[in-house]
Amino acid sequence: MYQPFQFFMPAQIFFGAGSLDNLGSAPLPGTKALIVIGGSSVKRLGYLDRVQALLKKQGVESVVFDKVQPNPVVEHVMEASSLARETGCDFVIGLGGGSSMDSAKSIAVMAANPGTYWDYIQGGSGKGLPIPCKPLPIVCITTTAGTGTEADPWTVITKEDTQEKIGFGFKGTFPTMSIVDPELMLSVPPKLTAYQGFDALFHAVEGYMATIASPMGDMFALQAIEYIAKYLPRAVNNGDDLEARAYVALANTYSGFVETISCCTSEHSIEHALSAFHPSLPHGAGLIMISWAYHEAYAPSCPERYARVAAAMGQEASVDGFLNGLNSLKEACGVDKLKMSEFGITPDLFDEYAKTAFSTMGNLFELDRCKLTPADVVSILEKSYS
Amino acid sequence: MYQPFQFFMPAQIFFGAGSLDNLGSAPLPGTKALIVIGGSSVKRLGYLDRVQALLKKQGVESVVFDKVQPNPVVEHVMEASSLARETGCDFVIGLGGGSSMDSAKSIAVMAANPGTYWDYIQGGSGKGLPIPCKPLPIVCITTTAGTGTEADPWTVITKEDTQEKIGFGFKGTFPTMSIVDPELMLSVPPKLTAYQGFDALFHAVEGYMATIASPMGDMFALQAIEYIAKYLPRAVNNGDDLEARAYVALANTYSGFVETISCCTSEHSIEHALSAFHPSLPHGAGLIMISWAYHEAYAPSCPERYARVAAAMGQEASVDGFLNGLNSLKEACGVDKLKMSEFGITPDLFDEYAKTAFSTMGNLFELDRCKLTPADVVSILEKSYS
Ligand SMILES: [Zn+2]
Ligand SMILES: [Zn+2]
Repeated sequence: MYQPFQFFMPAQIFFGAGSLDNLGSAPLPGTKALIVIGGSSVKRLGYLDRVQALLKKQGVESVVFDKVQPNPVVEHVMEASSLARETGCDFVIGLGGGSSMDSAKSIAVMAANPGTYWDYIQGGSGKGLPIPCKPLPIVCITTTAGTGTEADPWTVITKEDTQEKIGFGFKGTFPTMSIVDPELMLSVPPKLTAYQGFDALFHAVEGYMATIASPMGDMFALQAIEYIAKYLPRAVNNGDDLEARAYVALANTYSGFVETISCCTSEHSIEHALSAFHPSLPHGAGLIMISWAYHEAYAPSCPERYARVAAAMGQEASVDGFLNGLNSLKEACGVDKLKMSEFGITPDLFDEYAKTAFSTMGNLFELDRCKLTPADVVSILEKSYS
Repeated sequence: MYQPFQFFMPAQIFFGAGSLDNLGSAPLPGTKALIVIGGSSVKRLGYLDRVQALLKKQGVESVVFDKVQPNPVVEHVMEASSLARETGCDFVIGLGGGSSMDSAKSIAVMAANPGTYWDYIQGGSGKGLPIPCKPLPIVCITTTAGTGTEADPWTVITKEDTQEKIGFGFKGTFPTMSIVDPELMLSVPPKLTAYQGFDALFHAVEGYMATIASPMGDMFALQAIEYIAKYLPRAVNNGDDLEARAYVALANTYSGFVETISCCTSEHSIEHALSAFHPSLPHGAGLIMISWAYHEAYAPSCPERYARVAAAMGQEASVDGFLNGLNSLKEACGVDKLKMSEFGITPDLFDEYAKTAFSTMGNLFELDRCKLTPADVVSILEKSYS
């Protein structure tokens, strides 16, 4: 029998090549935007100029915050929210990858609320206080296909001093509007395309495996998995393939719906522990490296679900079909040879990583069909190590 | 290549057996509800009492409007909106089938706006004026699986004096909350279950065939079609089959998403003309009778799309597979012997019906892949007649 569910995803989504242009015509949720970006690529590629010009077309002013890091940190959330307040911004645009959009969500919370961000975080050393005021409206413009954050309420921010990387979100952190324009993704380099595509894949796979999986989340998950298996190798191996980029982008947005309706499993707890200790480890790379051992351990709890995922990937409908499909996809995307050691991960910290996975995102272990202990996590890490 | 699309469906949906109970705990959009119902069944079955008790649990008062007809009429929209204003209701609950929920939407518009309902209708003799004020919030509680209105902004109201039946909707007529509880559907009689299930089927099929069909609407449509082909015969032949009821209900809600992302084709224009002339003709029965001739005429414009629908129905992937599957499903649901003549439809009015289809809902013909003329419509009606 199916699992009852609740669906709520209030963002207006514009999808398709050229859809960025909607920013120049669709009703916007404010008159002055804080545009949150990271790195230099959105400037170099002209996306920032284009966004500002489209806003101007509607008479909307903007201020830019450009310090977001690949693993965004609390300090920058606080700095940017002060900037938003000082300059009178009444909505926040996240322009870029998951880190920019997640930052935009957290900044929107803190621009409208007192105290410090970690006051409101649940889990780890967060105080879990209720949020008194409604966050500023959030617009997500995604230039990568990797986190699905444009279709979910979640934001992941790192607290560096305590090495915690924790997800957070509620009704107020859904974007109001999201633009998913695959033309903006044409210049993402092959390696990043692969890392991000696999992140989307695991959001879908995990959402399908979680105990709270329900028919609607399953529908989005299986469709996302099918698109990624089919189109990710094309997008990785020929970045100019706009059709492949589009379907990978759509898969990624669908994986955001999966995050909204269902949730991740402990695979994400484990990876977040790794990248909290090693901020230079890309989230997707961390997932790729632990995925085989993780799903091998998880699969006995729901082999029929793995069989359906395998079928969606075009593989034999079985657990082995899934594990083989995962390996083939890694090879086809050139990410089958990643080594933990090259990212500074060392076996002597495996106990520590496992402990952190439970202490910061232990809630995801509760939603697993397969009950993993810290010792199981260490064993997964050992099998994944090279 | 895919069609770019926009997604916006802001209703919070509670799905599953027992989900009505959420009305007693989930945040509601007001403090006094106008509950809109039709017929006596929601009273007889105790649903009205249950809804009022759940509202009371949250301290929410309610007033009941119980005059809604199977084809709801403008007069009742105006009468109920006056009642809402006089009694100080600040939100509207549609409890029942599509007619009650559609009425709730239209009442929510008129409770907050001046003039008469037809002032705002586009098409036919409607004035198409802009709507100055935001409608009251709308809650849909569906006791049938037939219109998908709980997941779309659309409402269909009949103006009796001019024999017009016209669809209408905008951002403000989306429900705020929708409850889809298959337990409330267990007592729907077999014939109605079939009519409504076929209505949902055609919303999905038409949405898949419209020129504006896009990947996301297609996903909802194919899943809805698969569920209906598989579960509708079970729900019709054993009304107590809660699992079948649930999947038919979910298919119907998905068909509402299809209506939101894509749209109906001219099949609905033609049926609306028939039931505007013959108010006792159930909408689903009208669709069932014209569907074979309609889709036979439509299919040459996109045979590959019909093949995919046929496959979702478990049939050979071809146009014939679809047409055969349609016939088999009608037989399995006991609706293969409906006769137009038994509903008072006479061939001498075929020209009139065709003219009305174009004059009241001509816009849907523009969204067809297959360009139909009034003469084509007459020919479809002739082939459908018995
Ligand atoms: Zn992730
Ligand atoms: Zn209909």
